[in-house]
Amino acid sequence: MSCDIKEISSSKCFGGHQKVYEHLSEELKCTMKFSIYIPSVVVDSDATKEKKKLPAVFFLAGLTRDEQAFIIQSGFQRYAEEYELVVIGTDTSPRNTGVPGESDSPYIGTGASFYVDATQEPWNKNYRMYSYITKEMLDIVEKNFSFVDISRIGISGHSMGGHGALVCYLRNPQIYKAVSAFAPVSNPVNFRLSRKCFEAYLGSDETAWSDYDATELVKRNQPQKNVTILIDQGTDDEYESLMPALRNFKKVCQSSGQPIEYNEREGFNHGYHFVSSFIGNHMKYFADILHGCNQVT
Amino acid sequence: MSCDIKEISSSKCFGGHQKVYEHLSEELKCTMKFSIYIPSVVVDSDATKEKKKLPAVFFLAGLTRDEQAFIIQSGFQRYAEEYELVVIGTDTSPRNTGVPGESDSPYIGTGASFYVDATQEPWNKNYRMYSYITKEMLDIVEKNFSFVDISRIGISGHSMGGHGALVCYLRNPQIYKAVSAFAPVSNPVNFRLSRKCFEAYLGSDETAWSDYDATELVKRNQPQKNVTILIDQGTDDEYESLMPALRNFKKVCQSSGQPIEYNEREGFNHGYHFVSSFIGNHMKYFADILHGCNQVT
Repeated sequence: MSCDIKEISSSKCFGGHQKVYEHLSEELKCTMKFSIYIPSVVVDSDATKEKKKLPAVFFLAGLTRDEQAFIIQSGFQRYAEEYELVVIGTDTSPRNTGVPGESDSPYIGTGASFYVDATQEPWNKNYRMYSYITKEMLDIVEKNFSFVDISRIGISGHSMGGHGALVCYLRNPQIYKAVSAFAPVSNPVNFRLSRKCFEAYLGSDETAWSDYDATELVKRNQPQKNVTILIDQGTDDEYESLMPALRNFKKVCQSSGQPIEYNEREGFNHGYHFVSSFIGNHMKYFADILHGCNQVT
Repeated sequence: MSCDIKEISSSKCFGGHQKVYEHLSEELKCTMKFSIYIPSVVVDSDATKEKKKLPAVFFLAGLTRDEQAFIIQSGFQRYAEEYELVVIGTDTSPRNTGVPGESDSPYIGTGASFYVDATQEPWNKNYRMYSYITKEMLDIVEKNFSFVDISRIGISGHSMGGHGALVCYLRNPQIYKAVSAFAPVSNPVNFRLSRKCFEAYLGSDETAWSDYDATELVKRNQPQKNVTILIDQGTDDEYESLMPALRNFKKVCQSSGQPIEYNEREGFNHGYHFVSSFIGNHMKYFADILHGCNQVT
């Protein structure tokens, strides 16, 4: 697998640097961008000069967003710098793949991968975001950013990206040591927008869908008793079905023995003002867990 | 003057609310949007129920931006909530006025008002942003947001908006009690992009331009000895002529007896990652001055 990447922007931000790279993804067969925040404690990010190894948090953005939304709207950098966390943001789908109708709707195709590996034509050649996140991106990070301790990775996301974070975590607890989500789609097999995508990407046999449904995964998997899943949800969310689904998800976690901290935030809606209001708590959650792991130095 | 406004969005953010309104501007003869952050200490923003009067800070955005850039990218809300400041963000120009060619270039017309009152055809009917900011918006705020203490107003801005903030302040120290700027155009009569706009809006006689040039205004005005102008500038700014102009502006301030705190920030560029890194300092500057003024309660 090629792990070549090219820096396309770099801005100093709160002492560290907010960078954006692009690369040709083998999983997705298109050029992809990702962002990485490198705190100032990483004095030299040159791969040949290892300094301090830091934990990293992946952040998956929501429907219609790209790799920019989180880095310009959430204000996470101040906390990443304070807590010495590398933070990596990915795009929400392949782009410009040539799949017919790919960009015709904001709810399927471009910006709407729902972080699955598609099995159905015409999506299955490119729409492999699940493998892109859980395999290719980890290789990219390990090969290019030697200051990241790949054994201390967390994952978070917003909305569709919160769904992606939960699914990536629940299927790969050996990779991810902590997981959080903002207003996630926790039961996508019953959510209007994801059902359309699941049908297109995974086919009409719904049994295949449950591999990408956090509620179903918690039901059938062994609980990860040493990791508390952190979720925040605004009570004024425009997507009104998310909160009831999360209340059910909490119950499923509790009856399965899966620790969860689920916070309903009075008066907050679905947007980035909600994310920015609580991103500090989430960064602290990751710092507490990931800095507490055995460190590779 | 009509001061009717209509709320078009409201999002809870860090305890307070980030709102956006639109209104028909008499100065600009078009529909304009502005943002207002209302900290939680304003328990009830209903104009009929006065509670605690708070100071307010206006923020003027830069070239090509609109009323959204500052509220989604700077992360100021956390500090506005903490320091109990109302923060009002305006758009960067009139929009959809019908002036021929208004939106043909990012450097003139839409998004590029340079905060002047145009005197030249075809701009002079609509492009009156100086009066819009220094008169109409103050009326709007006073009539609609009774929790704002109109005697304690500060003004800030980024880039072209930093120029606007400096000019509005220097010409109206009786209105604005504090002023700051991020990477401002401090000498627009000598800056490539503003020269084109000044010529179009104000005519080819450059003597008229100096009314909108912070460096010229400091030279000819009485210094405001009780107010320290706060300016931050990144040393890696893509607009390379801004920093030398600011060094000269600092000298002019010093020889005029105008207090100034001018900080060059190593390695920062011109974008919002720079603004977000230092917005906390600027909010604290406004809080220290504006909360220290005699309060109207």
